[in-house]
Amino acid sequence: MGTERVVRVLAAGVCHSDLHMIDGAVGGPLPRVLGHEIAGHLEGVGDVLVYPCWSDGTCDYCQRGLEQLCPAAAEPGWAVDGGFAEQLLIPHPRFLLPLGGLDPVRAAPLADAGVTPYRAVRRALPWLTAGATALVIGAGGLGQFAIQYLRLLSAATVVAVDPSEPKRRRALSLGAHDAAAPGDDLPAAEAVFDLVGSDATLRQAVEHVRPAGVVVVVGEAGGRIPFGFRLVPYEVHLTSSVWGSYQDLQAVLGIAQRGDLAWDVEPMPLARANEALSRLRAGDVAGRIVLTP
Amino acid sequence: MGTERVVRVLAAGVCHSDLHMIDGAVGGPLPRVLGHEIAGHLEGVGDVLVYPCWSDGTCDYCQRGLEQLCPAAAEPGWAVDGGFAEQLLIPHPRFLLPLGGLDPVRAAPLADAGVTPYRAVRRALPWLTAGATALVIGAGGLGQFAIQYLRLLSAATVVAVDPSEPKRRRALSLGAHDAAAPGDDLPAAEAVFDLVGSDATLRQAVEHVRPAGVVVVVGEAGGRIPFGFRLVPYEVHLTSSVWGSYQDLQAVLGIAQRGDLAWDVEPMPLARANEALSRLRAGDVAGRIVLTP
Amino acid sequence: MGTERVVRVLAAGVCHSDLHMIDGAVGGPLPRVLGHEIAGHLEGVGDVLVYPCWSDGTCDYCQRGLEQLCPAAAEPGWAVDGGFAEQLLIPHPRFLLPLGGLDPVRAAPLADAGVTPYRAVRRALPWLTAGATALVIGAGGLGQFAIQYLRLLSAATVVAVDPSEPKRRRALSLGAHDAAAPGDDLPAAEAVFDLVGSDATLRQAVEHVRPAGVVVVVGEAGGRIPFGFRLVPYEVHLTSSVWGSYQDLQAVLGIAQRGDLAWDVEPMPLARANEALSRLRAGDVAGRIVLTP
Amino acid sequence: MGTERVVRVLAAGVCHSDLHMIDGAVGGPLPRVLGHEIAGHLEGVGDVLVYPCWSDGTCDYCQRGLEQLCPAAAEPGWAVDGGFAEQLLIPHPRFLLPLGGLDPVRAAPLADAGVTPYRAVRRALPWLTAGATALVIGAGGLGQFAIQYLRLLSAATVVAVDPSEPKRRRALSLGAHDAAAPGDDLPAAEAVFDLVGSDATLRQAVEHVRPAGVVVVVGEAGGRIPFGFRLVPYEVHLTSSVWGSYQDLQAVLGIAQRGDLAWDVEPMPLARANEALSRLRAGDVAGRIVLTP
Repeated sequence: MGTERVVRVLAAGVCHSDLHMIDGAVGGPLPRVLGHEIAGHLEGVGDVLVYPCWSDGTCDYCQRGLEQLCPAAAEPGWAVDGGFAEQLLIPHPRFLLPLGGLDPVRAAPLADAGVTPYRAVRRALPWLTAGATALVIGAGGLGQFAIQYLRLLSAATVVAVDPSEPKRRRALSLGAHDAAAPGDDLPAAEAVFDLVGSDATLRQAVEHVRPAGVVVVVGEAGGRIPFGFRLVPYEVHLTSSVWGSYQDLQAVLGIAQRGDLAWDVEPMPLARANEALSRLRAGDVAGRIVLTP
Repeated sequence: MGTERVVRVLAAGVCHSDLHMIDGAVGGPLPRVLGHEIAGHLEGVGDVLVYPCWSDGTCDYCQRGLEQLCPAAAEPGWAVDGGFAEQLLIPHPRFLLPLGGLDPVRAAPLADAGVTPYRAVRRALPWLTAGATALVIGAGGLGQFAIQYLRLLSAATVVAVDPSEPKRRRALSLGAHDAAAPGDDLPAAEAVFDLVGSDATLRQAVEHVRPAGVVVVVGEAGGRIPFGFRLVPYEVHLTSSVWGSYQDLQAVLGIAQRGDLAWDVEPMPLARANEALSRLRAGDVAGRIVLTP
Repeated sequence: MGTERVVRVLAAGVCHSDLHMIDGAVGGPLPRVLGHEIAGHLEGVGDVLVYPCWSDGTCDYCQRGLEQLCPAAAEPGWAVDGGFAEQLLIPHPRFLLPLGGLDPVRAAPLADAGVTPYRAVRRALPWLTAGATALVIGAGGLGQFAIQYLRLLSAATVVAVDPSEPKRRRALSLGAHDAAAPGDDLPAAEAVFDLVGSDATLRQAVEHVRPAGVVVVVGEAGGRIPFGFRLVPYEVHLTSSVWGSYQDLQAVLGIAQRGDLAWDVEPMPLARANEALSRLRAGDVAGRIVLTP
Repeated sequence: MGTERVVRVLAAGVCHSDLHMIDGAVGGPLPRVLGHEIAGHLEGVGDVLVYPCWSDGTCDYCQRGLEQLCPAAAEPGWAVDGGFAEQLLIPHPRFLLPLGGLDPVRAAPLADAGVTPYRAVRRALPWLTAGATALVIGAGGLGQFAIQYLRLLSAATVVAVDPSEPKRRRALSLGAHDAAAPGDDLPAAEAVFDLVGSDATLRQAVEHVRPAGVVVVVGEAGGRIPFGFRLVPYEVHLTSSVWGSYQDLQAVLGIAQRGDLAWDVEPMPLARANEALSRLRAGDVAGRIVLTP
């Protein structure tokens, strides 16, 4: 028996990246079965979450625990067919994590929306000593995870920034110490997480980060800011954070299994995938839509 | 004007170290005015907490932010007269931290009972990645702080160990995920905090720490265990943690000012200091007794 | 006696920043006595190097050992009068480091040219694990220090990049494993140090840094590159490095005192300061010109 | 084709652990083919070094890059048959590292004698900032590697301690700044490496480590010292270091391939294995004896 396995798909989250794929902005050649946030069932193993960066396991990125940067990685719903289907072919069982009792529909979005902000926050922990302030720009799905991780993993003061009043209220209910609209006065921060990534949010990030602080951009809105010796505050680190490593996803699953994480999902039959994508494009989604075959 | 200042004492915590001082086990020559957990008032500045490691500010420990290890440090209530008094002479205003609205009676114990477990937890953070387990041996005053810092600063699973059933309940109410009696089955842990420091608790620590984990001993019960290549699990770090640096105390004050920390104090007039010490020796104290002139 | 001291100047290095000052591009209002790389003599103490970031010692940057980022810092030869003089007024003896037998003329440039690349390299050490490659763009004075620190502090493979053939030869003699001209094929690197800081060198840095690597810009040529989610390799850190902390300068002095560092100086009488500045502007300087009163 | 491979053995180092195995003090049941420092040839791949901790690749130690702590690891020459043979069965090609032109006879000892002190030094790097002092107790084979890694990876002052005058001279020639006999005055050190591990050397380590420093024991002489709150200097870390991770061995190979490492080997035919073991037991070995089939 080789290492390939066929997983019966139980749930697959619908992500903005799927829209970018459809638009041809990212990902491999079309047509492609979308879906990279996948929970399923493997005979003899049980319910599993699929780690979506199918790395080669041998390059130096893999050996350093940076599977998501593996140049040879193939991602389901991206480089190969993904989870908007009844079955998924995976190259190796090492890409499966036991759900440990988590509802597959709830678990699926952890594979991207859940793990991406976790990695961003974890990498910024050296800056988030007690007394530090963290700014979270964008309090949508990813931002809501980021706020919770910041409270779970640091004693930093957490300030959410979002133009939407309901999202600001949600941010506060999830533990943000304060929530502001983009035009409000904002505190200087040791760490700024930009979950949007537009010109405007990147500018806001650089304007509010303190010297020696860090700006982590996660959002893919395509914005840019100039970097140079005097163009950002002294010794600030500008960096992007990309998806998550296998260990990052394990950590997120552990936190979720313990019940320390809140997030919203809306189940929808797989047959209505197009409707799900349309609603996401229209911004008409509260939590994560998760397709169920 | 030199750098010395006279602080009017508002509150001074009563600590087990005071008993050790009285017994001559530690500290400088007697007689000595005891009291190293001191809140007070400085004219023109306001209410302050006294950072109690009066370091020289110039040695390499001071420069590395390890004031509590400064070989030239003089501690009030220890090497020089302390806070069980109406006034305290301090060598330099740099040893004062503004209370920022905290009640002096509540703030005083932060200078030792509050900061010592903070430092212990903070130093162990590299071991406390998500998925890790932390064992807190001893759920008295310091242990209760430790449990809270662990929840505030890490996503580790926190298990408290104490023979006292009320303390186990208190541990759970402060955020411990589990609480066990010393004879119970305990999980293997990446980090073990020994707030007792007896032969028995150190042995328990070494028996439950995982390879590559850390044991931090804070308790001064005088216990010992043998260390050698195969005598503790491979690559475990054994270390003590001593009081706190200036930055540690700042961090604790910040957490307390934000309202994220719970601890109990029992105010008592300074005139009843001997009664306070007797009750502490008898183990008849729930929270920290704080003397008020 | 207050804390101010008058140091008799023995030597003061001439730095490109002095030209920027003269041109009004940086620094405080003119006229100003220039000179921030200063060795001198203090009665009763001996020969000393002047730590040039006269920080307030109380802000959070100072407490974190980032004196060079202290917003209240006054730098000699910059914000206040400096070392191109016979005497220098310093605000506090804590800004003096004993030379420990080093020749003052040789020691003076360590205060900027020596410490700045040290800090840049030290901050990048987490990226410089064995097997890593470091690219040093610009093999002039600062680059030559950087190459030596890289060899002293890491097992990284060090590649110097410079258009000047003599500087490439010098780089190799100081320990660089390879030296290349800007147009040559360059290896991908975990860490890139840009000692120039032009548009072209920053572009080169971003083109050769590997995902998850770091670019540290030290050079003040005023260049810029765009930063955004997909504009630099994934998870790369872009940062500037600014001068050095007090501890950085201590470390550099220690390395120099042990004889592990090579650098060139050319002594010149203070009376010929203008000639020194002219030659520096003309690029007609091999090592550091150091003025002696 | 499964993952197993047969490697033709080219060279196998003879290690003190082999004697411990023979004496039954460590390792699995006898009889066993000894030999864990193995270089060989794999058809289609070329000359390789065998990574000797055959870990399961799935446990949390493996995922954290701590293969040498994997509880399921099987070591050749220890838990399964090893390299004192003409052929070696390895469970998976992931345990092979290309020699990249290194002589197999020279390369073999890197798999234990070379990598073990590397790991010990690497783990202590946070303590080895510039200005720090490192004490290396025992300047035999492992100590000689340790001295070189300390010079390659840190700017620490390195002091070797050994009763043998020739070994002290060798230590100096390999870069130690000083070499002392055990009874000599020794400096206080931030990091002490005990390559012996006897009661006496552990005591020496604890007596000379500074507060907040680290003692790393590598030697397996079976010594012990008591640990407790006041029994070792404040905040010192006591730890053992065990063999090396896969990445550690890669790093060592890289350093060796670059020519930055000196060590002695004495080739001997496999048929004379018993003579090699006898000479090792008698202490009659200068470099590493390497058996060649």
